[in-house]
Amino acid sequence: MSTIKSEELEALCERALLAAGAGQQAARILAGATVEAELVGNRAVGVGHLFDYLDGYRQGRIAAGAQPRVRRAARAVIDVDAGNGPAQTAFEAALGDLLAATREAGIAALWIRRSYTCGELGYYARRLARQGCIAVAAANSPALMSIGGAPERILGTNPLAYAIPRPGMLPMVIDQASSSTAFVNIRRAAEAGEPIPAGWALNANGEQTVDANEALAGTLLPFGGHRGGNIALLVEILATLSGASFSLDAAPFERGSTPPDIGVFLLGIDPAGFAGSVERLSKQLGVLRDEHRVRLPALELTELPDNIDLDADILQRLRQAAESR
Amino acid sequence: MSTIKSEELEALCERALLAAGAGQQAARILAGATVEAELVGNRAVGVGHLFDYLDGYRQGRIAAGAQPRVRRAARAVIDVDAGNGPAQTAFEAALGDLLAATREAGIAALWIRRSYTCGELGYYARRLARQGCIAVAAANSPALMSIGGAPERILGTNPLAYAIPRPGMLPMVIDQASSSTAFVNIRRAAEAGEPIPAGWALNANGEQTVDANEALAGTLLPFGGHRGGNIALLVEILATLSGASFSLDAAPFERGSTPPDIGVFLLGIDPAGFAGSVERLSKQLGVLRDEHRVRLPALELTELPDNIDLDADILQRLRQAAESR
Repeated sequence: MSTIKSEELEALCERALLAAGAGQQAARILAGATVEAELVGNRAVGVGHLFDYLDGYRQGRIAAGAQPRVRRAARAVIDVDAGNGPAQTAFEAALGDLLAATREAGIAALWIRRSYTCGELGYYARRLARQGCIAVAAANSPALMSIGGAPERILGTNPLAYAIPRPGMLPMVIDQASSSTAFVNIRRAAEAGEPIPAGWALNANGEQTVDANEALAGTLLPFGGHRGGNIALLVEILATLSGASFSLDAAPFERGSTPPDIGVFLLGIDPAGFAGSVERLSKQLGVLRDEHRVRLPALELTELPDNIDLDADILQRLRQAAESR
Repeated sequence: MSTIKSEELEALCERALLAAGAGQQAARILAGATVEAELVGNRAVGVGHLFDYLDGYRQGRIAAGAQPRVRRAARAVIDVDAGNGPAQTAFEAALGDLLAATREAGIAALWIRRSYTCGELGYYARRLARQGCIAVAAANSPALMSIGGAPERILGTNPLAYAIPRPGMLPMVIDQASSSTAFVNIRRAAEAGEPIPAGWALNANGEQTVDANEALAGTLLPFGGHRGGNIALLVEILATLSGASFSLDAAPFERGSTPPDIGVFLLGIDPAGFAGSVERLSKQLGVLRDEHRVRLPALELTELPDNIDLDADILQRLRQAAESR
């Protein structure tokens, strides 16, 4: 592990993105989002995932010149066409409108379509919660997971996130996939020649398997059986309502030259209509932790650290990418 | 089993409610909601659950004279104080405002507080979807379930529901508890002297148990481990934002004379801002079923039946309650 200051890491990420062909603004935004994912401990969508973005730019799955187009679809509904650019830049282009609509109507929603993968979904919700709003976010992704007993991949790992402002602290952010595990954990087990737990995956014939290699050729399963599958389907419906590709139709985000065209949904709630509600909720979260022994990593994370511990190999790869222009 | 026409069952439910002290309007609304729960096959909140309402009226946990008070908390936010009456009558009082707000803003939300339990949560979402809106609903309930490894009851079984309009068909409605099982299943296992599956419950010391009697004195667990617990917490946050009791503080709905004061959240989305979106989603749901072998009971239920098969003992009890004035 190497320890690095967040500003230094952000500058490295930005240089690597510029070297891969990203525009100035996209590089700045994506670098910030990547470092934030590391700071909150969501490593799977941190620097390791940045290489997917770098490849995406180089291979044309992310459009370097994308200009997000923001449309007010209804008084409290913002529709953004990301133009096959990153979802994060589309979000930045629309955040002001979303906040204004949320404050004007008490509740509002943003839909992003034609975007590359969402990265850390909690990022979007956290940004809204830092402005005092309660936020719920949903995003779909290329199909990797069965639902409803289907013998094949139907939905992405479709993450769901939400954020609650906490006065004087970092908002509490929950961000979770709808799959019982990440695809990368299956790949690691296969590489190590180890079995996987029952309930993680089906093989190519749609049968339960504990063989990681069989699972690689098959499909993930949702967390918590059919109930988790229903959560994944809700995420799919919300994420695609504005016209994004269904998970079934989305191109892969890690190979080929076709953009995945996935969707992100973000709901903002302005608690001002219910005076004192955020203070009451925030206090209750503290009560759950301090008096009732509820242990959630998200409850414990009350401020962001300054430094990041990063795998030395990943840092080395990032430095190379930053120098590669 | 006895087969009964839905109109006849509804009339019986209404008479039983009037006999228990419900007002005319509440009796009519609750009878309709009860029969609808049976028609969609959600028996746990059907006629068997109506007896909780009858007891609730008789013992003062439901206020017979409650008049829901509807307030526009923000342009697209409706706040209803159910006055300790049923959530369903509060919902009926506010539905027109909610639909108007949803159509005006593209998205709107209704919060119900100071209500008795929500009954079938899918009912609220289905009503909105029948008017062409996509709906998401959440409700909390008296604490029965641990989250975050806590050794005690923290949240209710906190159901989440959503509904999608399907042109020419009944909306697709998903309605599920956040617990791994219903409390009644633990009670049945205890009565039968049978063990329960691992993962359903903790004992009074906060330890995993497969002993149903120990579980009765302990706490349920969420479906799908910590991810399901995070869904339950999202439900709690949404349901209580407008001031309803937290699950921890809610009085029981089946005993005592204190109303439970729980909360219901209902989100409406008018798809009109995204032309053709509901048709596209509805078609995709058919593709998932017909071409990809996704099997969901909610997908199969395309219209309501006319008749209901009811346990003969329950029907007998209902007839007695209807004659008991």
